[in-house]
Order: sequence, then C-alpha cells, then structure tokens
Amino acid sequence: MTIRLYELVGADPRRPFSPHCWKVSWALAHKGLEFETVPVPFTGVPGIESGAARTVPIIRDGDRLVVDSFDIALYLEEAYPDRPSLFNGEGGIALSRFVERWTQITIHGFLGGAVLHDIHECLAPVDQAYFRESREKRMGGRLEDIQAGRDDRREVFRKSLEPLRKMLDVQPYLGGQGPLFADYIVAGAFQWARVVSAYEPLAAGDPIAAWFGRILDLHDGLGRRVAAAA
Amino acid sequence: MTIRLYELVGADPRRPFSPHCWKVSWALAHKGLEFETVPVPFTGVPGIESGAARTVPIIRDGDRLVVDSFDIALYLEEAYPDRPSLFNGEGGIALSRFVERWTQITIHGFLGGAVLHDIHECLAPVDQAYFRESREKRMGGRLEDIQAGRDDRREVFRKSLEPLRKMLDVQPYLGGQGPLFADYIVAGAFQWARVVSAYEPLAAGDPIAAWFGRILDLHDGLGRRVAAAA
Repeated sequence: MTIRLYELVGADPRRPFSPHCWKVSWALAHKGLEFETVPVPFTGVPGIESGAARTVPIIRDGDRLVVDSFDIALYLEEAYPDRPSLFNGEGGIALSRFVERWTQITIHGFLGGAVLHDIHECLAPVDQAYFRESREKRMGGRLEDIQAGRDDRREVFRKSLEPLRKMLDVQPYLGGQGPLFADYIVAGAFQWARVVSAYEPLAAGDPIAAWFGRILDLHDGLGRRVAAAA
Repeated sequence: MTIRLYELVGADPRRPFSPHCWKVSWALAHKGLEFETVPVPFTGVPGIESGAARTVPIIRDGDRLVVDSFDIALYLEEAYPDRPSLFNGEGGIALSRFVERWTQITIHGFLGGAVLHDIHECLAPVDQAYFRESREKRMGGRLEDIQAGRDDRREVFRKSLEPLRKMLDVQPYLGGQGPLFADYIVAGAFQWARVVSAYEPLAAGDPIAAWFGRILDLHDGLGRRVAAAA
C-alpha cells in the first residue's frame, strides 16, 4: 500500500518547505517506497488524522501512523529492513542523533532567523496570521526585524559549518560513500531555505554547496522537483 | 601477543596526555585487548620503530604497525571483529568522521590554546625547547600570550558544545546506550586538558562533565589512572 506523507506547504501546495518533511521525503525515496503527499498548511496541521499530532511530518503506512522525522526514519528502518538502510547499523542511528542536534543548533539556528520573514511571504493569509503571532511571541521580535541583519551573521554561520566542510575532505557524504539519513537531516535545512527564499546561505564554491547539489540530484532529482525560490 | 602502544608523555612518563593516544587506549580497552604502553616524549617520536611515523599514537600488533588514531580504530575493528564493536556498523564509521572533525574544530580549537602553556610546563627541558619553537611558529605568538585570555573565550566555547549537550538529553553516550569510538574521540580532548592543566573547561553541573566522568569510569577506571593535574 502507498505510504501517505502529510507535509507542510504555503500558499502554493506544490511547494513543500518544512525541513523535517523533506528529511522524510528523502528517507522514503531512499528506501524505494512509493508514497503520496498530502499538502497541509500551518493551520491545517491540527486537523490531520483527527488531530493525531501538533506537528508534521506525519506518515500513514496502512494501520500505522508515525509522527516526527527521526521516529519515522527509525520506523522505516525497522519496517523495511530489506530496503537500503538509512543508518547502516546501530552506531549510525546513535550518531545521527548528534548530527540532528548539531543541525538544529548550528543551521536552523541561523536559517530560522535568516529566512523567517521569507517564510511568511510564502504563506496564505490565514497562515500568515498564525505564523506571525506564534513566531513573534516565541522569538520576541517582529519577523522583519529578526530577519534583518542576516548578512552580518552570515560569515559566522559559514564558519560554523567547518566541521561538515572538513568532513567532506574525507568522504562525499556524512553517510560515507553514499548518503544516509544523517545527510537528509542536514540537507533538509538547506532545502527549507532554498524553497522559501532566494537568500544564499552558502558561498559559491563552498564544498557544502556541492554536497547539497548531490543530495538534490538523488532519487531522480527529488529535491529539484521544487524550483529554488526566485 | 600483547599490543604495544607508543604514547606521548612529558617529564613524567606515567602521565600520557595526548588526546589521540587516549582515544587509542580506550579503544584497546573497549576491545578487551591486552596492551603495553611505551612512553615517548615529543623529541622521541621520530625514533620510534626506526622512524615509522612523525606522530603518535602508533601501535605494533605482531607484524603490523598502524599509525593515526582513527586508522588504528579501523584496524582494531577489522582485526578483532568478534570483540565489542567500536563503531556498531558502517554508518557508525562514517559518522564518527564528522564527530572527529567537530571535535578537532570545536574542542581542540579552544583547548589547544587554553592549555598551551600548561602543556609546556609538563615537558622535560629538551621537549620544552622543541614545543615552544614549533608551536610558536605554527600559532604565531608566544605560548603564554596564546593561553592568556582563555577565560574570555570560555563562555563561547561552552556554548559551542550545545549540540553534544542536547544529544545527551536523548541518550547517555554518543554511541547510544553505551560508548563507541566517537565517545573516545571527544573524551580524548577533555582528558588532554585534565592531565596537563587544572583549568576547568566545563562548568560544574554541565551534563557533558557528567558524561566525561562516565567515560573516565569505563574499563576499570582507565582514564582515572592518571590523576587530574593540580
């Protein structure tokens, strides 16, 4: 049976942008599993599957409903052990947790502010109202003000990616010679920015940009089915 | 046959301090392998095994000579597959490369300066001369000057450890429920500082300090056989 992925969209339902939903799209494609997507705007999330969760991604696989991108990857690994692995062993699972935390703090920490108002601009009016209110309360400032100054913060951000950049001297993917879920964790963040904003977080010629390009090419160019924001 | 580990020491041959040598000690103990250590000062390294390498750690295992901490861990994993794993699979190997880069940049980047002169103070005179000349040339300043101001840099350092700290919310080790080589990569850096300096890189009560304490307790308290510097 085809797996169903509920994923976050803005005004255009063909442009999913959530980093966590992209992790799951790539994970499903990595496993070679057929899936259909159900686009959901911010204000539609509480209505999914009779209020199954407060966040997306959510997948339905037959009787099973699974929430949270990491838990979904673990579920797919267990439910489809004969398909290509997302972790290549227990050590890969454990260390992917570190990659997840590093990504959340280092990359989301910068991009979450750097494209904050650009996200708002992608949303339908009802979702804009929700987004502005919830995010301005959480972040303690106006969306526009938080996004402003991103150029001043960008050099520090690029420098903070040095561990990833130096790792690419040794191997082409976090997963080694091929991608694993850890790659999708990091790539999800860059895809989020790519879909909502024309802002360039990475310098041209950065090996990380080349790596991200390789991720976008994977699975018949899955990540490129949504064009970069203009 | 007992494996021989050449490891870096200062004036006191009972106090090995190199982070990379500690990674290997823990890796050998993790595998349950017997090993003997050969203490080597900085100026003794070129003479090891007829000039086998320019750096330690080096291990001799029968006919095999292996250089570089990560390569030694890979060798042990392959040569002793029936012993407890250092990586728990290929994914663990690949992602340990990321942990290695992160540690080098984030932790060695701070500690290398913060205890630079303290290292010098642990060395015999001939090694002090070598160390001062080579390090001052590499780092472009006097050892004393580079170490000075470490208190001003410490808060930023502690903040930069947040990915590791947040990961410890999910699991007790980088390796998951038990330690893997990735834990020893990070712990080696803290052990380096602990052996050469009374300076406290971590705040009391930091979950990372508790994790490091757990690493020191492992393998019959291997890491505690060298007392902390006073």
